[in-house]
Amino acid sequence: MSLDSLQTPCLLLDKQKLLNNINRLNNQLARFNVSSRPHLKTLKSVDAARYMLGDLSAPCTVSTLQEARQFAQAGCKDITYAVGISEHKLPEILDLQNQGVTMHIIMDSFEQAQFVHAFCRENDCQLSSLIEIDCDGKRAGIKPGDPQLIAIAKILQSAELFSGVLTHAGGAYDSHTLDEIRAMAQQEQAAVRDAASKLNKRQISCDVISVGSTPTALLGEGFEQVTEVRAGVYASMDLVMADLGVCQPEDIALSVLTRVIGHNKEKNWLILDAGWMALSRDLGLAPQRNGYGQVCDEAGHTLPGLYVNSANQEHGIVALPEGLDLSLFSIGTLLRILPNHACATAAQHAGYQVISNDEMDYWPRFGGW
Amino acid sequence: MSLDSLQTPCLLLDKQKLLNNINRLNNQLARFNVSSRPHLKTLKSVDAARYMLGDLSAPCTVSTLQEARQFAQAGCKDITYAVGISEHKLPEILDLQNQGVTMHIIMDSFEQAQFVHAFCRENDCQLSSLIEIDCDGKRAGIKPGDPQLIAIAKILQSAELFSGVLTHAGGAYDSHTLDEIRAMAQQEQAAVRDAASKLNKRQISCDVISVGSTPTALLGEGFEQVTEVRAGVYASMDLVMADLGVCQPEDIALSVLTRVIGHNKEKNWLILDAGWMALSRDLGLAPQRNGYGQVCDEAGHTLPGLYVNSANQEHGIVALPEGLDLSLFSIGTLLRILPNHACATAAQHAGYQVISNDEMDYWPRFGGW
Repeated sequence: MSLDSLQTPCLLLDKQKLLNNINRLNNQLARFNVSSRPHLKTLKSVDAARYMLGDLSAPCTVSTLQEARQFAQAGCKDITYAVGISEHKLPEILDLQNQGVTMHIIMDSFEQAQFVHAFCRENDCQLSSLIEIDCDGKRAGIKPGDPQLIAIAKILQSAELFSGVLTHAGGAYDSHTLDEIRAMAQQEQAAVRDAASKLNKRQISCDVISVGSTPTALLGEGFEQVTEVRAGVYASMDLVMADLGVCQPEDIALSVLTRVIGHNKEKNWLILDAGWMALSRDLGLAPQRNGYGQVCDEAGHTLPGLYVNSANQEHGIVALPEGLDLSLFSIGTLLRILPNHACATAAQHAGYQVISNDEMDYWPRFGGW
Repeated sequence: MSLDSLQTPCLLLDKQKLLNNINRLNNQLARFNVSSRPHLKTLKSVDAARYMLGDLSAPCTVSTLQEARQFAQAGCKDITYAVGISEHKLPEILDLQNQGVTMHIIMDSFEQAQFVHAFCRENDCQLSSLIEIDCDGKRAGIKPGDPQLIAIAKILQSAELFSGVLTHAGGAYDSHTLDEIRAMAQQEQAAVRDAASKLNKRQISCDVISVGSTPTALLGEGFEQVTEVRAGVYASMDLVMADLGVCQPEDIALSVLTRVIGHNKEKNWLILDAGWMALSRDLGLAPQRNGYGQVCDEAGHTLPGLYVNSANQEHGIVALPEGLDLSLFSIGTLLRILPNHACATAAQHAGYQVISNDEMDYWPRFGGW
C-alpha cells in the first residue's frame, strides 16, 4: 500500500489500531459486566460507529444535535445528548424521538426541569431526563448533596420523565499518574452512587447511573451500581491520552499525512504542508514535548525529538534537532503527525483515509450542529 | 431582526462591518495607487469574495488547492497559491490553468524550481512562478542577499516561468505598538525591493513585487515599486487585530452566537453551548484578557470583563466577575462571542448567518484541501 497517491494534508486512520483500541475498552467493561455507551463525538463517522457500537442500534452518546440526526438516520436507536439541554433544542429532540429514537437529555437546574416538564405536557410526550452530577468541580452538574437534586428529580418524576443520573470526570485530564486517574474513577463512580442513594431514600429510583471519560473508563475498577460507561477518544487515542499514560503513542490510530514543502536552511527547519488547519490549534497537555504533534515517518514510526514546533494556517514548522540534516527530508517527503487531541484534529477534516493491511478505504465524517 | 430563530452555536457575519472593513483597505491602497490581491483563506466564501474582489475575475490569493478550485469555478481568473509548491500539487495547478485561470505558484529553493521547470517542459506549459522572500525570519522564503535567489530566478527565467518576488510579514503579529507594525511594513517592502534590485542587476526583471499581511497592508506607507498587496483577515477582523491596535473590537464582523445552557452557582459560572468546536482552540495574543473570545450581548455590544475562560468541545465557561449575578443571564439567553482568530473560528463552521439591517442571509463556506 502506498500513500503517495494521496493529496496532502489528509487524515489517516489505521483500522487495526482502531479495532485494538475498541477491543481494549470492550474487554475492560466486560470484566466488570457494565454496559458501554460509546461517545461518537470524536470520529463523527457512521463507519467508525459500526465498529464502536457493534450494532448501530446499541446505546450511544453524542455532543450535538447534528450527530443525533446523522446517527439516527444511520440506524442508532438509543441516543444520549450529553450537553445540558436548552429550551430551543427540545423540538428537534422530539422530532428525533418521533422517528423512533429513544432520546436521553441531561440537565442540572430546576429551570431546565421546568421547561422540559412544560414542553412534554404541551406536546404530550415523554423525554428520558438525566440529572447531571458534578463529580470534580470542572464544568457543569450539581453536587450529589445539593438539595436541588431532589427538587429537580421530583418535578421530572411527577411527569414520568426522570431516568437517572450522569456524570463526566473531565478532571481525569488533570492527573499526573495512573493512580490519580484510578482515584478519579472512584470519585466519579462515588458521586453518582451517592446521588442515586440520596434519591432512593426519597423513593426516586435511578434506572440509569452513567459515568464516563476515556481515562476513567479504561482504568476504573468496580463499577458497582453503574449501569453504563461513556467514552469517546478511546477508539482513536491521541497524544493527550499517551501523555496521561492511558495508551502508548503507537496505539494512536489517527495521524495527519503531510509532505515537506520547504527547507529553511538558516534555521534547519522543515516546512510542512500541514499547518494548524490540518492539525488544529490544540496544544494538548505537553506543548514543550509535542508542539502541534509528534512527527512520524511515512510508515508511522515515531521520529524521536521531532515535532511540529509551530504552525501557521497551512504551514507547519519542524525544527530539526542538532545533528539531523535537512537533506534527510527532501522536498516531497511524506511524514505523519500524531495529533495532540483527536477530537480537535479530526474536526479539521471531511473524512478519513482508512488504511488496513493492503487496502485503503475512505470514511466520511461530518461536522456542524 | 431577531436572532432567536437561529440554532446555536452558529456563526454570524455583520455585513455592514464587513463592507466597512473592505472599504478601509481599498481606500488605504488607493492612496498609494497599489493593487490589492485579497487573500480568500479567512472566509472561504464566494459571496464574501464578491465584495472583497469587486469583480470575481480580479486577482486573488488562496492557501489551498480546494480554495483555488472553488474560486475558479465561481469565476476567479487570476489566483496566487501562496504556499510553497510541492511536485505533487503541480498536476492540479495545471488543470486549473487549462480551465482558463492564470495560476501563480511560489517557491524558495532550487529543488522546487527544478521540478517546476521539468514539469513545464514535460507538459509543454508555463506556470507563473514567484520566489518567496523571507522578510522577517518567521517561516519560509530566502533572504534577499542569498545567492540562491539568482540561481532560482535563472532556471525559471530560462523557461520563461519567472514572474517576480513575494513576501509575507508574519512577524507583524509580534508587534507591540503601531510604530512597530509600521516599521515591519517598511522592512517587508524593503526586502522585496532589495530582491528585485539584485535580480534587475542580473537582467532579470520582476513583473510582480508582492507584499502582504493585514497589519502591514493597513499601516504601511509608500509601497514604491510594490505591484500588489495581499491581505485576508482585514475583511472580518478579529481580537488578534484588535489587540495589535489594527482595529477596534466593534469593527469585528464575525461572532459566534451562543445560548446560556447552564449555571454553576457555586462558582458563578455561565455554561454556554459554544465550546472550542464553535470557537476554535485558538487563544490569540492575549489569553488572559480574551480567553476563547470576548462576550457580547445579543446585539453585539461588548460586555466588559466577560470572556470565555475555558472551553470543552461543546461547552464554554464564562466566570462572571464579582458583583455580576447569574440571574442576569437566564438559561436560553443569547450571547455573541468575538473570535480571537477569524481564520480559525470561521473554519469550525459550514457557513455564515449574514445579518444586515433587517435582513438575514446565509453564505456557505467550504474547507478541505
